[in-house]
Amino acid sequence: MKQYLGIDLGGTNIAVGLVTEDGTLGYKDSVPTGSERGVPAVLQTMIDLCQKVLADSGVSLEEITAIGIGSPGRCDTGQGIIKYAANLGFRQVEVCKVLGEALGRPVYLANDADCAALGEYVAGAAKGASSSITVTLGTGLGGGVIVGDRLVNSELGHMTIQFNGELCTCGNRGCWEAYVSATALIRQAKEAAREHPRSRLALNAGGDLERIDGKAVFDAADQGDETARAVIVTYCRYLAIGLANLIDVLLPDVIVLGGGISARGDEMLAPITELVREAVFGQELTTKLAIATLGNDAGIIGAALLGRGVGLQ
Amino acid sequence: MKQYLGIDLGGTNIAVGLVTEDGTLGYKDSVPTGSERGVPAVLQTMIDLCQKVLADSGVSLEEITAIGIGSPGRCDTGQGIIKYAANLGFRQVEVCKVLGEALGRPVYLANDADCAALGEYVAGAAKGASSSITVTLGTGLGGGVIVGDRLVNSELGHMTIQFNGELCTCGNRGCWEAYVSATALIRQAKEAAREHPRSRLALNAGGDLERIDGKAVFDAADQGDETARAVIVTYCRYLAIGLANLIDVLLPDVIVLGGGISARGDEMLAPITELVREAVFGQELTTKLAIATLGNDAGIIGAALLGRGVGLQ
Repeated sequence: MKQYLGIDLGGTNIAVGLVTEDGTLGYKDSVPTGSERGVPAVLQTMIDLCQKVLADSGVSLEEITAIGIGSPGRCDTGQGIIKYAANLGFRQVEVCKVLGEALGRPVYLANDADCAALGEYVAGAAKGASSSITVTLGTGLGGGVIVGDRLVNSELGHMTIQFNGELCTCGNRGCWEAYVSATALIRQAKEAAREHPRSRLALNAGGDLERIDGKAVFDAADQGDETARAVIVTYCRYLAIGLANLIDVLLPDVIVLGGGISARGDEMLAPITELVREAVFGQELTTKLAIATLGNDAGIIGAALLGRGVGLQ
Repeated sequence: MKQYLGIDLGGTNIAVGLVTEDGTLGYKDSVPTGSERGVPAVLQTMIDLCQKVLADSGVSLEEITAIGIGSPGRCDTGQGIIKYAANLGFRQVEVCKVLGEALGRPVYLANDADCAALGEYVAGAAKGASSSITVTLGTGLGGGVIVGDRLVNSELGHMTIQFNGELCTCGNRGCWEAYVSATALIRQAKEAAREHPRSRLALNAGGDLERIDGKAVFDAADQGDETARAVIVTYCRYLAIGLANLIDVLLPDVIVLGGGISARGDEMLAPITELVREAVFGQELTTKLAIATLGNDAGIIGAALLGRGVGLQ
């Protein structure tokens, strides 16, 4: 069976894993990114870690069909260039060229959210689907679309769900991400706590609303706090509207939810599924909603398989 | 070269055309639908017109590879059933089975907007693209998505662009269609005329604002009326937001605009393109916007080619 190397290039760590063509992750290892050392040092660390993973697992470079990189930020997948990744300090970095010359194998690049989507599609919660969308909720909203055996270069988080709405980090207004990122949830929670100073949500913060984070909202809701629950319901409605939009446009077989919310698992999935059903055209929901199953490994697996192509299972 | 028959089943007329596999429309003919005669009579008229088109063009049924039907309303393409088409009075009509038995050829079915999208993709404004979306603006908003050689069963008009916004005919709020259909344009124009009773837009209506239609808005704008122009600018903004959403999600090579607005051609295309550029993520517009080139023939051509498959050019 063909073998691939997947590199998950993150702001904190670089992880490299050995992946077979069916999407099974074998040996993996990780090291701190240390992006303050500059671009060449980070690239060398990626190369070194690839060689270490191969050495530790007793596989030679010649046995590797291709290497794939999942990177944050904006990528030119065709040219193999990381155009801009703020948290790495990368700008126009020809990462595929550098790694390709050092390792002598074909090197592919895609955005990390796209890689996670590919991983879940091949080996995770969307396995067996003919089309799927993976939405990863974190500080922002990452997403990947796979349809017709093709990984689409999408920016799901910047779909407008509220004309002239909240200002988004991208400069536009009313983007989905501006309502469903962790940052947005926390903003909504702080506003609610300010309006309801005697709520559990506000009291738990001990007078300092700046201490409210995503976990605090769920903790207060678990304690029965109506204010926190209302924040979560509104958040889920925004989430559902965007998911319904994706279904109205693409009708994927499966939508996979990953990131922060996936930690709450099925507890969140059932109410979100109902809200999505109400929001889709005709209230007829044929798309399956599922929680991501691969966790952080999705990115490595998807990156590794970039060179395999989406459709060749 | 293989030949196909395309049937455009409309509320007013049924049109049938002979189409070659490259999407060239040869002989075509049409007759009134007469849906008041009931379902069996309409189906018989479709069969008769297919036979008439073949007889008149000197082609035998045996030379036809497949027949395709474009129908308004909701279609179960897999089962070949028109589930619900309000303006035809059709409900659960097994149209492919009936025509297949009468004509002895394979019969395929899709929504008429999807057929128009397929027609433009194969032989019209999106010819040569690897993915395209066709948006047809009329009383409602029809749309078809082709990506990865696949016609997606989408409901573009019901994507939410305004959370808790205008009530849509589908029962939900804030759908794109509720802002960019002809009905929506007229509603926005009437509101503006009411607020600006001395505008050209209001005066042209001679005191009866109910007389305002889509053409009246453009006529008043052509006469230099600021109220009508503002209505059109707002309308174009709503249009652009939805188009930008489609680009952020799918990044198609081409978006084709058809229906009412395509009659205004390039005059509308340039400002809409600019508004879309402002609205897409990163203000980087790589998708080409184009005006539909096949007009009403797009539906016949696309329907005919349903049996050919999207990707086999």
